[in-house]
Parts: sequence; structure tokens; C-alpha cells
Amino acid sequence: MRTQVAIIGAGPAGLLLSHLLRAGGVESVVVETRTRDYVESRIRAGILEHSTVELLRSAGLGDRIAREGDEHRGIHLQWPGERHHLDFVDLVGRSVWVYGQTEVQKDLGRAGDRAGQQIIYDVRDTAVHDPADPYVTFTVDDRPARVDADVVVGCDGSFGPTRDVVPGQTWQRTYDYSWLGVLADVAPSTDELIYAWHPDGFALNSMRSPTVTRLYLQVPSGTDLAEWPDERIWDALSDRLGHGQDGWKLARGPITDKSVLPMRSNVAAPMRRDRVFLAGDAAHIVPPTGAKGLNLAFADVALLAPALVALLREKDPRLADEYSDRALRRVWRCTHFSWWMTTMLHSTDDPFDRQLQLSQLRWVTSSEAGARGLAENYAGLPIGF
Amino acid sequence: MRTQVAIIGAGPAGLLLSHLLRAGGVESVVVETRTRDYVESRIRAGILEHSTVELLRSAGLGDRIAREGDEHRGIHLQWPGERHHLDFVDLVGRSVWVYGQTEVQKDLGRAGDRAGQQIIYDVRDTAVHDPADPYVTFTVDDRPARVDADVVVGCDGSFGPTRDVVPGQTWQRTYDYSWLGVLADVAPSTDELIYAWHPDGFALNSMRSPTVTRLYLQVPSGTDLAEWPDERIWDALSDRLGHGQDGWKLARGPITDKSVLPMRSNVAAPMRRDRVFLAGDAAHIVPPTGAKGLNLAFADVALLAPALVALLREKDPRLADEYSDRALRRVWRCTHFSWWMTTMLHSTDDPFDRQLQLSQLRWVTSSEAGARGLAENYAGLPIGF
Repeated sequence: MRTQVAIIGAGPAGLLLSHLLRAGGVESVVVETRTRDYVESRIRAGILEHSTVELLRSAGLGDRIAREGDEHRGIHLQWPGERHHLDFVDLVGRSVWVYGQTEVQKDLGRAGDRAGQQIIYDVRDTAVHDPADPYVTFTVDDRPARVDADVVVGCDGSFGPTRDVVPGQTWQRTYDYSWLGVLADVAPSTDELIYAWHPDGFALNSMRSPTVTRLYLQVPSGTDLAEWPDERIWDALSDRLGHGQDGWKLARGPITDKSVLPMRSNVAAPMRRDRVFLAGDAAHIVPPTGAKGLNLAFADVALLAPALVALLREKDPRLADEYSDRALRRVWRCTHFSWWMTTMLHSTDDPFDRQLQLSQLRWVTSSEAGARGLAENYAGLPIGF
Repeated sequence: MRTQVAIIGAGPAGLLLSHLLRAGGVESVVVETRTRDYVESRIRAGILEHSTVELLRSAGLGDRIAREGDEHRGIHLQWPGERHHLDFVDLVGRSVWVYGQTEVQKDLGRAGDRAGQQIIYDVRDTAVHDPADPYVTFTVDDRPARVDADVVVGCDGSFGPTRDVVPGQTWQRTYDYSWLGVLADVAPSTDELIYAWHPDGFALNSMRSPTVTRLYLQVPSGTDLAEWPDERIWDALSDRLGHGQDGWKLARGPITDKSVLPMRSNVAAPMRRDRVFLAGDAAHIVPPTGAKGLNLAFADVALLAPALVALLREKDPRLADEYSDRALRRVWRCTHFSWWMTTMLHSTDDPFDRQLQLSQLRWVTSSEAGARGLAENYAGLPIGF
């Protein structure tokens, strides 16, 4: 099989890339190791930046977000005794949207269906060969297959095969805590997300819809879910989230999903070798604090799609040549921001660090410059920043 | 001897306190272990915040600053290949002044002379007794002496005796680098301070006057000055400072003073026990990056002086009761800021941290919110913040 762009990975980055390439008149084939059901139901991110929503709208993918998404003006930041609202719209003129990655994935899947996009799910043994004149091999239905392409793009995450054919430098930071995340069938107890610093550990009160609450607890890395029966989770959440405001109570409901998310920062550079490119998690991982992962992957794709259209249709390599450097500028901005949010909010045994955290929280919620700094990064920098 | 306020330490905090108390009709006696010559010639801070200059002006101590001080609109921030100017006046409407602590000390000393302020220099064995009904003992000219007072204030630094009679909690951070500081008889090569990140280590190009340059190099803690002959110092400074801007050169001249400054952060709370109060370095130490130490000491004194006037003249304890909490709010703000400037600018062996530093420097110099955050902290928050 021959195509212009072989895309490894049918997650949001891979599908958005195929969508934008199609709109630009470039054909692609997507290969994915998981089934379509799996990728459309895995619970991941839930917050879309202003720029991400604009990007999806301009790509004709904004209708359901406008109908079913929940636009948030900002977030609540709290620590024991104090809850403060940061209004991003007032601060930087941009909002964020609560709209699950599962829904983005379905929207992209349907757009692909309508256009007859070729997506090969449930493949095994994917391998990328010869970056200068690339092709992809894999097994599907127990038969070997091969796609020859002008360009291969790895949207296959940090454990996918593409990363290994793009040699370079890697920067990494691990954190000694994880998030225990739950989905619960109960109306959210808050209008907008609550990021809570607490001596016992960070907690986050998020949501997916008017009837589904998403909640997170900081737990030590290596935590076994068996040690966290539902009752213990609710008690810890009530305690950590309940100290910000008098009279506020966390509503409980049936927990429908429970998982432990390890946290790390990882950046690989460059994001290109010859005719093989990386986008999204294949090139960089951020901890979830600040909700940058999905948005950053889309920002990569927003740069890469026009670069590949110019390269393949007009034989103009300039944008493709700039891609890695331009993408990495935003990658490091978001990597720094995610690290900053993470280290500001997660409790630590060091008493000096605790005071630094509280001092920084007080500053961010009392100084307009401090608040704008957080807002501008959280609501997201313009695409192409 | 009996007085209203016994002040331990005739550094800038102690002398300014005696000056402001005098203006408020409260008498004080200052005792100091060093000689007057020593305290007036020791090389310390050199940057006054906007609020500090306002405070000194309103206390009648601003004439020579206006005449001989050098008002700076901001600072330069650089890393290899880039030098950026942050204009604090444009960003937050406030400037800073280059005016050495030695000069502030002389101004305060002269004001004390004119008013007949009692300052006892060159004492030994100072001790503070009975915080509820305090008195101070010491030895002067080999004779024991005692001052009974309504209030004792420790302006005697982190190694002075007062701190030990104010029990509480201490928070501390040490850094594994120090500053090698030099004074040189040469006109500054820059109009405003240059803070330089460099892989070999931080460097700072400051100045004291149109003919005296002040320069600092990051060196490992425990560095022996014997390993740093003048030539080596100039070479390192030229290298670290010279990479920000094409064609820029560091002018060299005779080095007249050379020392190694260890760096640490330290906060003691509360800043009061009964009738004994702490101000300045006696309660908190910041690393020199960002020039907060002297300014923070003066901010303490600006709160404490009216509090003691109200307590002793009007028997109104409210401001005195609020002193520790109000002062500590600013102390932690400045402790966080100094830590932030320090950890952003000093080189580290961790490659991930290096990228975070560069990413943060890029953000601070390209985002208005980022620049204003630095400017508002550097130029200084209003007194009473």
C-alpha cells in the first residue's frame, strides 16, 4: 500500500492530523495497535484550551463542543481556610472548555468515517523503517502488511515504536507521587475545577458532564488501588477539598472508574529525523496538573499539518524544517508550566518547600501579574507561539 | 541605664528603627558589638527598592540618595546569545536605586549624630533577659553595663543573641553554591545590572558608583579565594557576562575587595516574644539574588516603628500584636522571590532543570505577565503589603 503520510497511532493527535491533512489535500493512512472501541473509551484528558477549541472549530469539529461542552471562565485555587477564583476571561480574555478526550476522539472518528479515512485498528508489531525513504510494517489479522509513504508521523505515544527511529536527547523528571483518579456518577459539587493544596496531599475536583464528576487524589507512587476502597477515597477527597470554604460539601456517588496515574515529565528532541516526524506524547509527556497533554499534542499537529501540506503539495520544505524548533518552544513552555503547577500543589515533607508553596499560592491569588501568569499558561498560548 | 526601647545592633535596621522611633517621640539606646568604622565600611547590599527610597525620603533621609544614587528603570536578564531588558517603570511604575548599604549606614549615622542618638559601639557579651520585663546586659570598655527597657528589639542578625530569646519555628534552605563578589575601581560596563545565566555558573554585573563596579560569580560552596587570582576572576566574568550581546565587553580594573558569600534562606517565626521583637536578618536571611535583604529589613522596621510608638506612647498594643504576622507575610513573599530568582539563575548539573531555567527565562522576557511578576517583586511591594 502507498500513501502520502503514514500516521502511527489513532489517538486524538493522529486522527486530528489525518483530518487536517485531508482538508489540505494530502492523503494519509492511520495504523493503530488498539481497537477503535478501546481508543474511544479510554479515560484521559478533559480540559480543552481556548486555542484548541478554536483549532477544532476552524477544522469543522466544534459543533458538539459548543452544544455539549462546558465553558469555564477559570479555576478555583484553594488551601486550608482559603478558596480563590481565578477568572481567566477577565485576566487574559480566554476561557477553557470541559470536554472529555473520549468525546474528541469520537468526533474525530466520525469525521474520519464521513470522509472515508483509512484507519487500520488492532494491528501488531508496528515498525518504522528507513527514515530517509520511509515505510511502515505491521501485522493485521495475522497477515504482514506494509505502507510506503512520503512521510511517517509518530503519534504513538511515549511507548510507541516511532520514537526509537528519531534519535536525539531526552530530558526527564519523575515525581514521587501519583494521582488516584475516579469517575463518579454524581453531579459535580463545584461550578469550575478546584485545585486544592492540602498538607495530606493535593486534590482536584473536576467534572466530565452535569452528571459525572472526575476527582483526583495525590497518592504515593506505587500505590495499590486495593488499599483504596471507595469509602476511603471519598473521605480523603472530602477532607482535602472541604477545607477551602465554610459550608461547602463534596457530594458522593457511585464510582464507575478508578485508576492510578503515574506522573512524569519527558521531552525528546529533535522531533524529526529526515522524513519521520513526532507529535504529541511520542515526543513529550507532561504531568496532568494544568491539563496540558492533549492540548500540547494538538498544538504540535496544528504546526505539523500545514508543514506537511507545504512539503508534499508545494515541495516547500521550510515549515517542515522549522517544525521541531517551533514545536519545542511551546513544549518547553508547557513542560515548565506543568512542572510549576505540579510542584506548587503537591504536598512535600520539606517544611521550607511547604512555605514556598503557600507563599506562591498567596501571590498567585493576590497579585494580578501572578494570576495572569497562571491564566495565560492555563488557558493556553496562541497556536504557533 | 533606662530607656524605652533597647535596640541590639547598629546596622541599617537598628539605626533606622532608632531614627523612626525618635521621630515618633520614643527614645532608644542602641548597642553594637562592632566599631562604628566597621559597620560603616562593610560591603553589603547595593540596591534600594522603590518603597525603601520612599520610606527613607519620608524619614528625611533621602537627600543624598537623590543626589548621589543612581535610579535604574530595570535590569538586564541574559543567557548565551540573548540579552533582554526588563523595564520596571513601564511594567509596574516603580524603579530601583543603586545606593550602597555603606552610604545608607553613613546617612543614618549622621542623622543619629545630629539628634544625639545614644549608640554604644564595640560592646561584648550582649545578652537579652526576661522577655516579659526585659533588660540587656553587655560589657563596654571592660566594664559591665545594663540597659532596662520597655521593649527590646533584636536587629542583630542571624548570629546575634536576641534570636535565642524568641523561641519558635525555623525554616531553612541551603544552596550548594556561593557568590564570589568583587569590587573594582573601573567604570561599570553596563547602564543597569546584568543578571546572567551561563552553563558555567551565574554572573552578575552590578555597580556602586560611576567609577566602581561590583561583580559576582557563582562558585561552589566552600570555595577558597586563594584559588581565584584576579586574572581568573576577570576571565570567568568576561566569559559568563560576554555571551549575551555581540560586541559587548567587560572593562577590567584594579580589584579592591574580594569575598565569598555563602547563600541560604532562613525564616524564624514568630518575630516577637512578649516585649522582645526581631527585625531584619535577626529573623530572616535571603540569598542575595534579587537584592531583598536590606529592603526586607527596612520593611520590618517600617511596620515595627509605628507599632512601638502606639504601644509605648498610647498604650495601644494592636499594631504590636499584628507585627509578626504582617511582617511574615512580606518575609515569605520575598523569601519565595529570592529562592525563585536564585534557582532560575544558578547553574545546576541536572539537564532537565537547565531546560526549565531557560524556559522560564524565555517566558519572563517574552510574556508581559511574566515580566510584571518579576518586576513587581524586584522593584518591591508597597510597605505594609
